[in-house]
Amino acid sequence: MITAQVTRIPPQRGCSFRIKRGQTLRVIDPLGEQVSDLFAFDEHDLDCRLSSGRSLDYASRIYLTTNDILYANNSKPMFTIVDDTVGLHDFLLTPCSQEMFELLYKHKGPHPSCSENLSLCLSEYGVSEADISTTFNIFMNVHIDAQGKLTVGAPFSKAGDHVDLRAEMDMLCGLTACSAEGSNNGRFKPIDFMILG
Amino acid sequence: MITAQVTRIPPQRGCSFRIKRGQTLRVIDPLGEQVSDLFAFDEHDLDCRLSSGRSLDYASRIYLTTNDILYANNSKPMFTIVDDTVGLHDFLLTPCSQEMFELLYKHKGPHPSCSENLSLCLSEYGVSEADISTTFNIFMNVHIDAQGKLTVGAPFSKAGDHVDLRAEMDMLCGLTACSAEGSNNGRFKPIDFMILG
Repeated sequence: MITAQVTRIPPQRGCSFRIKRGQTLRVIDPLGEQVSDLFAFDEHDLDCRLSSGRSLDYASRIYLTTNDILYANNSKPMFTIVDDTVGLHDFLLTPCSQEMFELLYKHKGPHPSCSENLSLCLSEYGVSEADISTTFNIFMNVHIDAQGKLTVGAPFSKAGDHVDLRAEMDMLCGLTACSAEGSNNGRFKPIDFMILG
Repeated sequence: MITAQVTRIPPQRGCSFRIKRGQTLRVIDPLGEQVSDLFAFDEHDLDCRLSSGRSLDYASRIYLTTNDILYANNSKPMFTIVDDTVGLHDFLLTPCSQEMFELLYKHKGPHPSCSENLSLCLSEYGVSEADISTTFNIFMNVHIDAQGKLTVGAPFSKAGDHVDLRAEMDMLCGLTACSAEGSNNGRFKPIDFMILG
């Protein structure tokens, strides 16, 4: 019986937390079609960080799912995906940012963003925004066509879908409920997570 | 008439240099089928760094070529590709590293790597290895099939092929002649570069 506490991240917000080696992070999409950006650091060495480039290289695949490993920049395993009810996540794009909304979507004025949310919630650990590179974009639907064109579609996740990531080291994590209209089928919803074990 | 000096990077080595806004970096494959990894920092702000995730997001394409822009993590343009005689480069994978040769290719003992070479040559500017994330892998042939499987093939570049990148800010750059057997069709060759303008 799972008794771990569920934490809810409100729409367009983020939070940070610690996880210990051997514990499992469950990220849940409670309402469906909501992306969640994850970044992580070795708790004992902030120079050891999540790396999309290493992870894709070792997996030799763009789309990571159950049994795949998310690696750090120094090639140490950070997370193993141990369960995944969706099977489509993105590891190509950086978290949405104020500048991205202005450049890509011609947005005027302030806009909440995963980049700002991750930076804010991780700053208490001495992490700077520049240290947060490409996030693991859970539930994000980025399609690549035969010519390499990227298209962001509605997530495949339905209400209650989840992904379980087993921690392979002690880590500091940042997690968001993504702020980008285009990634969440035009609506902003919460993200739930729990730490098992 | 071009009178700029050509610098040769020996096989499996790297170098660092400064480039000023408005100058153009020409990277040449003198013998063919040789990859060159590029990373860059704003000379005046080392927290401003090359970002694959931003660049792919803004281009909405995996494969960047003439007229595409390589962006920094803070969404400022760093380079514009102004000429490209090959048209196939990779912006997915991190530079090869000692650990990569051990994990992916079961290599025993020390192996030269782009990661070590970039780190060594950029260390004099106060850059740490952790600051060097996914490089722009010039001439690298990474094929993605319909299922998202990644395959590294022989580069399409022939002797004398080049790519020209116009600097959009003053930068510190690291550039290599890639050390990975699998990326260079089994041989190690030099890379030439020059700074125009």
